[in-house]
Amino acid sequence: MKRSLKTVLLGKPLLAQDMHHECLDKRRALAIFSSDALSSVAYATEAILIELLFVGTIFMDWSMIVAIAIIGLLVILILSYRQTIHLYPNGGGAYIVAKENLGETPGLVAAGALMMDYLLTVSVSISAGVEALTSAFPQLHSSSVSLGLLAILLITLGNLRGMQESAKIFAIPPYVFIFSILALIGTGIYKLAAGELVTQPISEVVRFSYEPLGLFMILKAFSAGCTALTGVEAVSNGVPVFKNPKSHNAVVTLSWMAGLLGIMFIGITFLAHALHILPSDTETVLSQIARATFGTTFFYYLIQVSTTAILLLAANTAYAGFPRLASLLALDRFLPRQFTSLGDRLVFSNGIIVLGFLAGFLIVIFGGDTHLLLPLYAVGVFVSFSLSQSGMVVRYWRKRPKHWGLSLSINLIGAITTLTVLGVIAVTRFVHGAWLVIILIPLMVIMFKKINLHYKLLGLQLTANAKDFVHIHEPLNMLVLIPVSGVHKGITRAIRFASTISKDVVALSINTNPESTARLKADWAALELNIPLVVLDSPFRSLSDPLIKYISEKIDEFPRKEREVVLVIPEFVTARWWHGFLHNQTAVLIRTYLWWKYPELVVTNVRHRLRF
Amino acid sequence: MKRSLKTVLLGKPLLAQDMHHECLDKRRALAIFSSDALSSVAYATEAILIELLFVGTIFMDWSMIVAIAIIGLLVILILSYRQTIHLYPNGGGAYIVAKENLGETPGLVAAGALMMDYLLTVSVSISAGVEALTSAFPQLHSSSVSLGLLAILLITLGNLRGMQESAKIFAIPPYVFIFSILALIGTGIYKLAAGELVTQPISEVVRFSYEPLGLFMILKAFSAGCTALTGVEAVSNGVPVFKNPKSHNAVVTLSWMAGLLGIMFIGITFLAHALHILPSDTETVLSQIARATFGTTFFYYLIQVSTTAILLLAANTAYAGFPRLASLLALDRFLPRQFTSLGDRLVFSNGIIVLGFLAGFLIVIFGGDTHLLLPLYAVGVFVSFSLSQSGMVVRYWRKRPKHWGLSLSINLIGAITTLTVLGVIAVTRFVHGAWLVIILIPLMVIMFKKINLHYKLLGLQLTANAKDFVHIHEPLNMLVLIPVSGVHKGITRAIRFASTISKDVVALSINTNPESTARLKADWAALELNIPLVVLDSPFRSLSDPLIKYISEKIDEFPRKEREVVLVIPEFVTARWWHGFLHNQTAVLIRTYLWWKYPELVVTNVRHRLRF
Repeated sequence: MKRSLKTVLLGKPLLAQDMHHECLDKRRALAIFSSDALSSVAYATEAILIELLFVGTIFMDWSMIVAIAIIGLLVILILSYRQTIHLYPNGGGAYIVAKENLGETPGLVAAGALMMDYLLTVSVSISAGVEALTSAFPQLHSSSVSLGLLAILLITLGNLRGMQESAKIFAIPPYVFIFSILALIGTGIYKLAAGELVTQPISEVVRFSYEPLGLFMILKAFSAGCTALTGVEAVSNGVPVFKNPKSHNAVVTLSWMAGLLGIMFIGITFLAHALHILPSDTETVLSQIARATFGTTFFYYLIQVSTTAILLLAANTAYAGFPRLASLLALDRFLPRQFTSLGDRLVFSNGIIVLGFLAGFLIVIFGGDTHLLLPLYAVGVFVSFSLSQSGMVVRYWRKRPKHWGLSLSINLIGAITTLTVLGVIAVTRFVHGAWLVIILIPLMVIMFKKINLHYKLLGLQLTANAKDFVHIHEPLNMLVLIPVSGVHKGITRAIRFASTISKDVVALSINTNPESTARLKADWAALELNIPLVVLDSPFRSLSDPLIKYISEKIDEFPRKEREVVLVIPEFVTARWWHGFLHNQTAVLIRTYLWWKYPELVVTNVRHRLRF
Repeated sequence: MKRSLKTVLLGKPLLAQDMHHECLDKRRALAIFSSDALSSVAYATEAILIELLFVGTIFMDWSMIVAIAIIGLLVILILSYRQTIHLYPNGGGAYIVAKENLGETPGLVAAGALMMDYLLTVSVSISAGVEALTSAFPQLHSSSVSLGLLAILLITLGNLRGMQESAKIFAIPPYVFIFSILALIGTGIYKLAAGELVTQPISEVVRFSYEPLGLFMILKAFSAGCTALTGVEAVSNGVPVFKNPKSHNAVVTLSWMAGLLGIMFIGITFLAHALHILPSDTETVLSQIARATFGTTFFYYLIQVSTTAILLLAANTAYAGFPRLASLLALDRFLPRQFTSLGDRLVFSNGIIVLGFLAGFLIVIFGGDTHLLLPLYAVGVFVSFSLSQSGMVVRYWRKRPKHWGLSLSINLIGAITTLTVLGVIAVTRFVHGAWLVIILIPLMVIMFKKINLHYKLLGLQLTANAKDFVHIHEPLNMLVLIPVSGVHKGITRAIRFASTISKDVVALSINTNPESTARLKADWAALELNIPLVVLDSPFRSLSDPLIKYISEKIDEFPRKEREVVLVIPEFVTARWWHGFLHNQTAVLIRTYLWWKYPELVVTNVRHRLRF
């Protein structure tokens, strides 16, 4: 039953030799690695506009300037990551680059930041995907959180099945998205030029704040827009799955991705600016642009649906990255070793399940609001960007390969830029949630180190030397204690077991009623066993207290190496689970308490099955 | 820690010989046994008015006629219960009377009805007590349910401590209540006669229903008012604690109680009628009368507070009755035997706890509304009245003592009257909740019988005859299986234990990684133990599936009588509880699954404590 439900949901178990790595050509690779980066155009422009709107509608023009600055940052990042791809053909995630070049602690900081990134990629993408859907179908607006959780459930189950096999299908939505967004930008600009689009002039100066448009507000808008850059590192992590020449193909794919991202981001920001679109609670900026350009036609719905689809794919990519990173960390003993085990379907099931739970938790906590999650997202992403770049700088400095000067300069510019941006984000977005990540990352590093220490100490404690096996051939000297409630069928096997394993057996009985104790004594004598019956008085009528007291005394009487105390508990197994309520559960109580107080006590349950 | 928290809340454990029964004189007995009955005047008049108001304000005059009919019923009940007191000087609860004279099933019906009564006494009295309080302090109105739950918590804790000892204090509130209600009635009538109270004429005919005031509506009002009679049986249950001559003193107390109840009930109903008081959602009828008579003075608050106090005492009486009845039923094997055990403080703790939980549950479900609970209450009370009276009739018929004709006639009239009233309540209040009790009581009887059957079958299954002990002196033939993950300190004790208890030991290892398996094989051989190591392949990487399969095969290989399979599980005990997450919990999984599939499997845990 358990097995069959699992099989229906997740498919049949797979043999280890079934694992195969298919190599991807550039077109498929672009589809797979770009969904995270490209999908961020669905929310990045809106994030800038929200910040500017806060200062006042007359300042919305600044959106283009901010977008252009972000494109500049994109160029620096791409140049830097080209170099990472060449130097780390086996995949250069920030954890590996930082650990190798900067040391363990920076590596762990990068690991913590990356785990936050993956988690927020899921939560942000799912929230934004649901928003794209509810913009088109406003009647779904009230079910946003439920829809988000449903999407997480389906993606989690899909990944537990192992979804890589269907990657060919996953190549379609990104191209549909790219095509429809480019068509939107083209049509929008043409219709604007032809004067076919009526733009309503923003006559009123709506001001939500009396702060002037100072540098701080511009930097805030800039850091909000930096979420457009999330996901650009994906290609550098995935170099090994490219077709040969791997690094070359990866760099070409990276450049295409960056080009598309830049055009789409600047195009959408331009249209939002030209059409005087203001962010709204119920409809995304992208949906407003599409509706203004195409009307509520087929093309409009195509844009919304393909936006949702690419955002779900972006969430899906984190389901590959998070469990892989968790398994790397677990192999290095920084996370519980359960993250290294491949499940039935050859995926890191534990990592997938943990990611699903945490992402669902975030969706519920933040009510599925993309723009509340974005400040958290941006911090993590730029922490890993800057550590990765700094690691590259150190590497060039140490190794000094051919043309190292130029390469080092590129990464140095990358490192300084990303560190600066990180500072800007941390300061301007601190009160909006960035503080949470700034607290969480150090806590995660401490946790990684504590776990590592535990495993190291475990090894030390368990490693056996010759001395530990000196006595292994000698039988144990055991005192066997067996609590009995009366002479009946339920105790016969337990008594046989006890007298089989030791000559030193004592039966224990609690005297709560003199009559039944007298009867028990007589019945016990009649059995003519070589086992003394000790009757324990219970002044306060407790069944467990006198037993626990007696057993504790016996344990403390001798050092454990000289005599082991073994508790044999005769138990009933009732025919129906609810019958359990009709019996004293004293055995469970005693076992739990003694295990807590004397972990080394050997406890054996000899159970008698009731037939009805 | 556990013990000390318990001691602070409940007091020190008591020795069994500390139990003492203090005999009560009539004055103390009246205070203790009357609180349930007398407190019902706090809601019974209001219950009648609510029904009449539903037909229309012009019919409120009927309230006096209904109240007089109820007083007639009270007289019949008192005459009947005088006889029960004389015949059952050891306490004649409906369960005992019905079981002795009518048979097991009627006895169990009475028991079910009584348990419902006790439960509803708590819920109704607490709700009404809170309403008396919130009438005086309307700002508490929104916290009604919380106040009710708090009261239940305090009463439950008090009873777990054993509150009988403070019964002297409990004698005060009933007399304060009696005094203040009698003062209210006297003052009210005097002021009415002197024309000092301005009664507002009800000019408008407010009609909430277009039903005519037919017989059905009058009967409905009558059955609502019958809740005034709840608790009159209390004295007959408590005869043993009276001073000698017990029966005589009990009868005198019963008569006093009935007299006071009759005067208070008719007096309050008369004042409500004369002052034209209408039931309201936020203020009780009694509070309205008191406010009209005294104004919002000290006397008004005295009435409200003493009403709350006597209602809490009424709830408290059920905390003595319910656990005692549950222990009687448990002794007769109709309820789990845990209800018979006296706790630390010489009270039936389990019954007290169950009652507290159920009463709290009802308060939450019904939102603390007294008048939603009353229809349930009335049905249970009259089921036990009629079974008790019928039992007495049968008893007189069988035994035929001196003057049996008269006595039988009195109880026959009682039985016929209470059965008729029960029918009236069941029909007129069916849709208002009576149906629930009508369904629940048979379900409880079925449950009692099922429990009884289980204990009978248990006895049959466990009773051992000579045949069962034939083999008890022979050692068991045991195959000991011990799963090992590697050769380290954590398994040495488990191996010694296994080879101590049997010569037939097999170590089991799961092959998930050829390298570590090869190392384990070499390490194992180096130990030079006389224990074969069986390596189990795990094609789908599960740790538990191959183990479970192998153990199952070994269990099924021989009948259990020829060879027992003993599973010895080496386990770690981590130094911190959260370290448990860093280890595979395979042992727990295997144990749980095998216990479920093979309950008779002997499982032993030999644990190794990690120091850090």
